[in-house]
Amino acid sequence: MKKYVVGILGATGLVGREIINTLQARNFPVEKLIPLASARSAGTVQTFGDQSVTVQQANAESFKGIDILFASAGGSISRDLVPDAVKAGCVVIDNTSAFRMQDNVPLVVPEVNAHALKNHQGLIANPNCSTAQLVVALKPLHDAFTIKRLVVSTYQAVSGAGNKAVEELYMQTEQALSGQQAQPQVLPLPIAFNVIPFIGSFLENGYTDEEMKMTHEVRKIMEAEIPTCATCIRVPVANGHSESVNIEFAQPVTAEQAREVLAGAPGLVLRDDPQLRYFPYPQEISGTDPVYVGRIRRDVSHPCGLNIWVVADNLRKGAALNAIQIAESLVAQNLI
Amino acid sequence: MKKYVVGILGATGLVGREIINTLQARNFPVEKLIPLASARSAGTVQTFGDQSVTVQQANAESFKGIDILFASAGGSISRDLVPDAVKAGCVVIDNTSAFRMQDNVPLVVPEVNAHALKNHQGLIANPNCSTAQLVVALKPLHDAFTIKRLVVSTYQAVSGAGNKAVEELYMQTEQALSGQQAQPQVLPLPIAFNVIPFIGSFLENGYTDEEMKMTHEVRKIMEAEIPTCATCIRVPVANGHSESVNIEFAQPVTAEQAREVLAGAPGLVLRDDPQLRYFPYPQEISGTDPVYVGRIRRDVSHPCGLNIWVVADNLRKGAALNAIQIAESLVAQNLI
Repeated sequence: MKKYVVGILGATGLVGREIINTLQARNFPVEKLIPLASARSAGTVQTFGDQSVTVQQANAESFKGIDILFASAGGSISRDLVPDAVKAGCVVIDNTSAFRMQDNVPLVVPEVNAHALKNHQGLIANPNCSTAQLVVALKPLHDAFTIKRLVVSTYQAVSGAGNKAVEELYMQTEQALSGQQAQPQVLPLPIAFNVIPFIGSFLENGYTDEEMKMTHEVRKIMEAEIPTCATCIRVPVANGHSESVNIEFAQPVTAEQAREVLAGAPGLVLRDDPQLRYFPYPQEISGTDPVYVGRIRRDVSHPCGLNIWVVADNLRKGAALNAIQIAESLVAQNLI
Repeated sequence: MKKYVVGILGATGLVGREIINTLQARNFPVEKLIPLASARSAGTVQTFGDQSVTVQQANAESFKGIDILFASAGGSISRDLVPDAVKAGCVVIDNTSAFRMQDNVPLVVPEVNAHALKNHQGLIANPNCSTAQLVVALKPLHDAFTIKRLVVSTYQAVSGAGNKAVEELYMQTEQALSGQQAQPQVLPLPIAFNVIPFIGSFLENGYTDEEMKMTHEVRKIMEAEIPTCATCIRVPVANGHSESVNIEFAQPVTAEQAREVLAGAPGLVLRDDPQLRYFPYPQEISGTDPVYVGRIRRDVSHPCGLNIWVVADNLRKGAALNAIQIAESLVAQNLI
């Protein structure tokens, strides 16, 4: 079996470390691992299997000899360095929003649109965390019943904002419990025992970029004109994004019909038992791979409406796992 | 000015105590305060202004001589005792769901339907917390533009489940920070650093009673056939409910038009500044009276859609404050 030289840009971040763990856990055929990061993190030693690897400073010259580069160091670093990596011959799987909406860049969730990897030009985009888990749940429903519109409200974990945000959640919570005032440093508002009513930067239309990512990325990945309206909210959860999703179909769909379609769908676990009050929640599913769906019920306000509740580990399916599944799909399809 | 003998059924609960504080803060004309509670809490001494009052055990004989009874001891106690109180001549303002949907019981949010108090028969219902704040924001929009449908996802604070739930939030959070496993006692699942994907008991249709309360109560208070679909979620916030609300109108409505209508509406504060990233959030508004609205923006998925974000102190506008505003409205309208 062919083995690959794998680079990780942003190797010391939450997602970078999760990518390294996941490569190992899934036995991805790694010949050599090359962790790259900013000057600040260069020199750090990381473990990969029984190897110790030293993090190198990333620059335009870092990419020679790398077969697959996972980029998760943020949009501006990707904009700076990913074109150099592509020129150097890497196949880049970029976890940032920098290139996602470019026509010549496939945006891929393998359960949904692995075929889009064909004719890639060296650069593949990994979707935003909240979109990745959503489309895994939507795809089987859309294939069966045709989705006409989505209204999504998210309950997003702090790990989506990185290492330092998770530290801030815990530190602020300790401060709050001891009666101290918390001063936000990483997140824009206090997060301990609070919800923050926006994620990202504001656009002209009053939405945040996080919200419009969902609107645009759903369309591109699903390859369907599905109008999507998102409200993205940060909650004091360390890891695991939840989504309250209202779907309008082209036809009436019962909860039972939806469950039949979702049961056994790829990448998905149905956890929907009102009698046992058993539904997915972030604390339980954090650290696992699947996308979980529950609270399936007909919309009492619309004849063709249905509600679902979608939860997944945003560092896994929302980031690292999906990126590696893209690489696996490239290998399986002989596209690398 | 006439003064009233005021009874509080459930005087030692979170809402009961908030009612006592609010009566005093708003200078409600109280001649005498009679706190009532279960045998377990009887004998507790409470402060009302410069008076000390002893909590008495509530029973069918407790209500003679009481002019206004605020009932907030839970649905089953209200079902048991409120009929006795009405027979004894009290005007009862009931904070539970026991009688809300009865035709002869007005369900009132004074900013919205104070007129419904006319012809009351001694029993007035206070709506569920998440409905009360919602209709304050919806009423001016409905009057101006006609609402056709609502899709609501809530981010509900733990105080809505009472004293012991708030204690559980703090205790579990301390346990989680020190690496201990939290065992839920009051809430149905762990709440520390988690979201709980349901509130209340499950009905045949897959919704919880908490969710269907919103569906039914919105119609009754607004006196309009507005189909409403709710998803009610508990978040690790001590106090202050937030709601992500998607509204479909009979016509296109711009964010600017909505802001004009909402600015200065009774009981409402507009806090909607994307440039300063200033929107309402529970930590900041807990302990205040108004309903706050922000994140107003056109729905990118529907030509007549609009999103708003509604936050209020669920113990105040969601419970105690609204109950006392009902009493004030009864006095002002000479209905008591």
